[in-house]
Amino acid sequence: MRYCFGVDVGGTTVKLGFFDEEGNLLEKWEIPTRTEDNGKHILPDVAASILDKMKEREVSREDIVGVGIDAPGPIDAKGTVYVAVNLGWGTFSLKNELQSLLNLPVEAGNDANVAALGEMWKGGGQGYSNVVVVTLGTGVGGGIIVDGKILSGATGSGGEIGHIHVMDSETEPCNCGNCGCLEQYTSATGIVRLAKRRLAEDDKSSVLRECANISAKTVFDAVKDGDELAIEVAERFGQILGKALAGIAAVVNPEIFVIGGGVSKAGPILLDYIQKNYMQAAFTGARGALFSLATLGNDAGIYGAAKLVLD
Amino acid sequence: MRYCFGVDVGGTTVKLGFFDEEGNLLEKWEIPTRTEDNGKHILPDVAASILDKMKEREVSREDIVGVGIDAPGPIDAKGTVYVAVNLGWGTFSLKNELQSLLNLPVEAGNDANVAALGEMWKGGGQGYSNVVVVTLGTGVGGGIIVDGKILSGATGSGGEIGHIHVMDSETEPCNCGNCGCLEQYTSATGIVRLAKRRLAEDDKSSVLRECANISAKTVFDAVKDGDELAIEVAERFGQILGKALAGIAAVVNPEIFVIGGGVSKAGPILLDYIQKNYMQAAFTGARGALFSLATLGNDAGIYGAAKLVLD
Repeated sequence: MRYCFGVDVGGTTVKLGFFDEEGNLLEKWEIPTRTEDNGKHILPDVAASILDKMKEREVSREDIVGVGIDAPGPIDAKGTVYVAVNLGWGTFSLKNELQSLLNLPVEAGNDANVAALGEMWKGGGQGYSNVVVVTLGTGVGGGIIVDGKILSGATGSGGEIGHIHVMDSETEPCNCGNCGCLEQYTSATGIVRLAKRRLAEDDKSSVLRECANISAKTVFDAVKDGDELAIEVAERFGQILGKALAGIAAVVNPEIFVIGGGVSKAGPILLDYIQKNYMQAAFTGARGALFSLATLGNDAGIYGAAKLVLD
Repeated sequence: MRYCFGVDVGGTTVKLGFFDEEGNLLEKWEIPTRTEDNGKHILPDVAASILDKMKEREVSREDIVGVGIDAPGPIDAKGTVYVAVNLGWGTFSLKNELQSLLNLPVEAGNDANVAALGEMWKGGGQGYSNVVVVTLGTGVGGGIIVDGKILSGATGSGGEIGHIHVMDSETEPCNCGNCGCLEQYTSATGIVRLAKRRLAEDDKSSVLRECANISAKTVFDAVKDGDELAIEVAERFGQILGKALAGIAAVVNPEIFVIGGGVSKAGPILLDYIQKNYMQAAFTGARGALFSLATLGNDAGIYGAAKLVLD
């Protein structure tokens, strides 16, 4: 049996996983992400942690298939990063740099894309090879898997579905600078925004009026309790997201959509709102697409990173 | 030097091309498409025409790399057709059936996708491998090329971009049954529709008012003559298409968009209207995408079909 490592570099911690080549996660741990000095310590820290683990477990380089790594930022299929603002990184070959530190084969990808690969392999998309993963968190991320491989795009921006324009009438800007991006309505903060806008429209009663801090969770909890105004908000959310996913399906025709991120903790009810509206907008040839919830949570990145190097 | 055939099956004629393996088109010809009897004569006719040509040119099976073929309808990466209404075909393996008639390797794909591959190889997308081809004809078709390969999708509906939902307020149905599809505004007939709607809005003068039969060509001819109302129509067309392409770019992040089909005869002015609006809606990471016009016209299909089997 041979082994591999999956490494998920985040803005505050780096998650590492030690896997056997069948994809069983044997151990996972974290180290801090040192973003000072333009992030120049990050890869040496990762390399040191991996070499320590190999020593501890008494495995040699020959036993290791390689190391997969992801990071937040556009990264193309060759493992080149095009500026990762959160880490202080500029443009360089993440693949080559970690490879030369470790003297092991390395593959690299964007964090959302790699997490999508993980969900295809061992999570909500298991058994499928044409998968769209939609991550509804602070923002909206995505990953497009075509024939079992990540669609990275020309400059590593494949799957940036949070920035699909969905609303002409929007006047507040998105973090990206445009107005009316998908993520402005369907991320955790976007759902709160939809709720606040709905509350401001009239005086309709709602448990949400009593919340000091409305969150996506309080909105969907209220939906489950039958709160009419919250149901209207969920419906609006489902319309916007369902329609956007129908557009994505007309481009890539996936077998399954996997919905993840913090918002997905609302559970299967979330899929009902998305899927109903998807079916209304989807092209006939794409209506067979399935919907599921992500299952790997924060481990999706290390699973996907491992899969990158096992492929 | 070895050779191959590229075959483009349309609703009325089948176009055939004889290529050398470097992609030089040595000869092209057409045969009628016999759609009677559920299209059962089409493939035997194609096979007979190819075998005749091999005899005429005195080339043996060993000299032939294979035969690429496309047809109108969803066809997946394995060469399975999922119902081709215009040809009378049900669901079957186009690849296997032609292969057994010819005793030669065969590859098959959807006509719009295969034409896109042709434009990437020898047309407006030459030199690139991540290409989105947009065909503005009677309808709006498309083809997505990722790393030099067609994105066929789970059931052969990849690249069906004409059916992306772009207009919530639409009440007239598209041919597909939905309301508000991209093709309702940006196909040749869609542009005429935009023009007629604009003319009905008020009494603003325009040369288009004197046209007995407005066409996409008369609209863009009027644009070139500085007709203000026609320019408003072109602007509306550009807004709708530019925004939709920005959405596509957020999914697949192409290097270049290639615009083809009858409408593209309007020339570079068409790209101006599309690109300006694309840039306003596109995610920062996708703004570097280039725009060009398709150059292969009706030969795109046979070129793409040849490329299918040479890959």
